[in-house]
Parts: sequence; C-alpha cells; structure tokens
Amino acid sequence: MEVVIAGAGAMGLLIGSYLAESGISVSFLTRREGQAIALRDHGVTRVQNDLESTFRVHAFSDLLLAPKNALWILAVKSKDLSDLVKQLEKSKSLGHLMFIQNGLRHYDLGRSTSIPSVSVASLTHGAGKIDDRTVSHNGVGMMSIAELKGSQRYSSQLSKANSPSFPILYQQDALQMLLKKALINCCINPLTTILELKNGDLLTNGPAHQLMEVIYDELATGYPEVLKTLPFSEVEVVCRKTADNRSSMLTDRYNGVPMEIDTIISAIVEGYEETMPTLKAFETLLKAIDEREDDA
Amino acid sequence: MEVVIAGAGAMGLLIGSYLAESGISVSFLTRREGQAIALRDHGVTRVQNDLESTFRVHAFSDLLLAPKNALWILAVKSKDLSDLVKQLEKSKSLGHLMFIQNGLRHYDLGRSTSIPSVSVASLTHGAGKIDDRTVSHNGVGMMSIAELKGSQRYSSQLSKANSPSFPILYQQDALQMLLKKALINCCINPLTTILELKNGDLLTNGPAHQLMEVIYDELATGYPEVLKTLPFSEVEVVCRKTADNRSSMLTDRYNGVPMEIDTIISAIVEGYEETMPTLKAFETLLKAIDEREDDA
Repeated sequence: MEVVIAGAGAMGLLIGSYLAESGISVSFLTRREGQAIALRDHGVTRVQNDLESTFRVHAFSDLLLAPKNALWILAVKSKDLSDLVKQLEKSKSLGHLMFIQNGLRHYDLGRSTSIPSVSVASLTHGAGKIDDRTVSHNGVGMMSIAELKGSQRYSSQLSKANSPSFPILYQQDALQMLLKKALINCCINPLTTILELKNGDLLTNGPAHQLMEVIYDELATGYPEVLKTLPFSEVEVVCRKTADNRSSMLTDRYNGVPMEIDTIISAIVEGYEETMPTLKAFETLLKAIDEREDDA
Repeated sequence: MEVVIAGAGAMGLLIGSYLAESGISVSFLTRREGQAIALRDHGVTRVQNDLESTFRVHAFSDLLLAPKNALWILAVKSKDLSDLVKQLEKSKSLGHLMFIQNGLRHYDLGRSTSIPSVSVASLTHGAGKIDDRTVSHNGVGMMSIAELKGSQRYSSQLSKANSPSFPILYQQDALQMLLKKALINCCINPLTTILELKNGDLLTNGPAHQLMEVIYDELATGYPEVLKTLPFSEVEVVCRKTADNRSSMLTDRYNGVPMEIDTIISAIVEGYEETMPTLKAFETLLKAIDEREDDA
C-alpha cells in the first residue's frame, strides 16, 4: 500500500506519522526540496506529551517522482487545491484522491474531477508543526472518511493505521460529514481568532462561551438537519480535547498568512446572511483583521 | 467665574487648558495629591502639532478645599460618578454640575440629584493624556452643552472660552444631544477596540467601514428620530477629524483598565437585542476581551 501526502503542514505530518507507524509506505510531496531532504534523511517525528517517535518516510518535491497508483491524501491549503488537482489529472498516475481540507469548497471539485476514485476525510485532531519534519500531537481526535465517488477499496486500506491514538471511522454521507466539521469550525475558529483565545478558553471565558452558543443557534437556522446530529455539547467536547491548541485560523493569523475565511465561514453563511448576523459580522471582522495585517 | 474640573484625564485636562486660556479660574480635583502638586506647580500644558502652551491652574486632591459656588465639570469615569455626586450633594458648596461622560447612564443621575442646577456636555475632540499635567489635542471637535435643570446662567459663562480651536455650542435638547453622541460612539468605539484600529482606519479599512455601516443601520431600528439628525457622513467626519486617535475604549483596553462597555454599548442596545445583533455581538466580544485580559 502506497500513500502520498501532498503538503507537509501540521496535519499532513501527523497523518503521515501514524500511517508510517502502521507499516504503510508513506511519501510526502513538498513544495520546497529542503523539506523533502529533511524528511528523507531524518524521517517524520511526532511529539506527544514527553514521547518522541520517528518514522521513515519517502519525500520529494517533484510530482513526477511520485509512486504510481497510490492513494493521494491532499493536505495542502484550500487555495492550492485546484491547481494540484489539475496537475494530478494530467499525470494520470494516481489511484485515489482523498481531501482533508476544512469547509466545503472542495466538495464540488472532488465530484467533478476526472479522477474516478475520490474520498473526503475530516480530522478533529489537534496538531502543531514544530519544524519541517516534526509535529506535536496536542489532542487526540478522529479521522472520519467518506467516499465521494468510486469504491471504498482504496481508502479502507488506511484502517490499518486505526488505533486509540488515531481512530479512523468510515462514514456513509460525505456531505453530512463535511458539513458537521464545517459547523464545528464555525463555532470555534472565528471566535478564537478574533479574541486570540485558545480553543479551551471558549469553555472558561463566559462571554466567549455565550457567543459560541449564539453562533451555534444561528447555524441551526440554515442547517437544522446537521445540527440534530451535532449537539452543542459535542462542540464543547472538541474545545476540551484541543483545549491548549490554537485553531487553524488563529495559527494562520499569527503566521501572517491569509486566513481561510472564505472556506470556513463564507461557504456556510452564503444565503443565510439574514439569519446568521453574528457569524456574518465575524466574517467581516476577520476580513478587516486580514486587511489591517496586510498594511502592517 | 470659578470652574472646578473633577478628574484630570485627557478630556479634563483639555477642557481645563482652554478655560484657563480664556481667563477663567480653573481648579482641578484629582484623586492623587501627586498630580495636584504637578498641576499647581507647573500648570496644565496643551500640545497641538508642534505648539506647546502652558496655563496656570489651581489643583487639590481634597474636596473640602474646593472654592464655593463654582461650576463643577465632572470629568471622572462613569463608574466613579455616583459616589462623587453624593459627596458633592453633602458638601452643599457648589453652584452648578456639568456632566461630560459618554453614554446616557448619568442622565437620570443628573435629573434626580438634589443639586438644583445641572447641565450635560458632549465633546467630540480628540485628546490624549501625555503625563499628569500634559494633554495633546489631536483633533478639533465641538463642546455641545445642554441644560438638564436650572438655568443656563452658569454654563453660559463657559462661552468665554469659545474659539475656533475650542468651539462651544448650546443645544436645546439634552437627551437628543447625549443620544447623538452615544450613537456616534457606538459606531466607532466597539469596532476600533475589537480590531485595534485608529479612528481613521474605519474609513480606509474596507471591511471595517462596512461593519460601521452595519452598526449604523442597526441603530436606526432603535433610534430612527436621532439618526435623522445624524447622517452616516457625520459619523465619517468624526472619524476623519480624529483619524490618528485611539477611541476612549481602545485606550482603556491598552491601559488595562475596564472598558466602558456598559455605558457606551449596553445602554444603547438594551431592549433592541433582536434588531441590533451585530452591536450585541460586539458588546459580548468586548466583555470576552475584558475577561481575557483579567486573566493575563
């Protein structure tokens, strides 16, 4: 079983470490050759509490060096996704695509690509990139996988890596699964980013917790069916499990890279501006922060 | 003509400097004797552009030392107001009270006090406290004055200080005047504080400007009559005149003192939570920021 992980950020490295640990052959496609060299020479290292484990992986920065017929896990930023998919369509060398991005923007991309076998995954782990080849696992979550098209033949092979530290669950309804993750992100990411709070602070800071509930209630106006399967307490559990983490959006803000406002918020708010005024305001506040930081 | 200014923050010092310049006898009541000594020994200094002017003033930290029958301008924080008014009621030595606070919380206090002559003033100047006796005048605004009860006999004496740098305007309707100032504050203070922007940035940061308009439109649902006399362009003019200033709320945030959320926002939002969801969300965001900064 060959897996290629395109993008070696926190989530890519985390997944890669668990797959490699389970004996799956893992390759990283990186943007910089320097990172590929580091991964090739020293492997991927995962840090959890005081435990450090290192696993051998392959790595390359040139797509043409990728193994044929592999399962590709696309762990790049949403904005880089459509270019990458175009390249992969051209190369005609891959077996299966798996998207792990936030939001829903890639849902249509996955369904419309000429690649016949595609799945989506949604991860709730907490992870932080320490350096080019080292990731910290800060909160055990879940990897949920659902097929978009084709069979489960490819993605089911990942279940080899299923473990208490890295639970993998196969879901039936990809859209429902993505929406659920997206709604959790809408409750956590904008607030933590505007207020510069860690995820766990949303449980202890009274007014922030109150706003998280306001957002949750607003989401119910647009996605009542999904929220039936996502009680507010489940959102709180995610905050608790990743209490010491910064949300992906706040991490982007601190790193001075554009935040995924469009992917995480706009895709959810679109068409519901009237019934989601608070989330809409958060979207605009974050755009203002992005614009302010561009000036700085 | 004797004027006592209780509270020697930015706005107290600014008013004091202009009144003293016009020949009015000005005394400051300060909380700390150290500040009273500085003001007594060296006067109040106003800095505008490259110009520095210093004026002699009286100052004391003990209320019993105040001149009798004076016009008192209360320039303390809203939260310290009711204690101060109680002390003044007891001392029975003053001629007239003038409130200059943000918001409307002092409106009932002013009407219900046993002191027979009371007015309110609303200032749109930009000012920054440099040290205990020095203030910078960062944007020429207006001092609007309206009687709450009693005659205009006392407050009209301030018109002596009326000048192009310190225009004074007498208004008929105190409530209307306070509301107008309060609504301007609601457009500017919460946004600049959440986003850490200067007032002028609300004109140049696209998404922030958009949110200022959202707040303005929300205010129209509760205060349509006042907004008829306050076009959005007038709010923009205030931003422009005080472009380089930090709002009073952001200044409080940076100084680590509690922000006047209750005075500036809650008093306006009360009863209109349904039609002012964005302003309500800003109120809660600011409370979350206050709580976060308490922890830090």
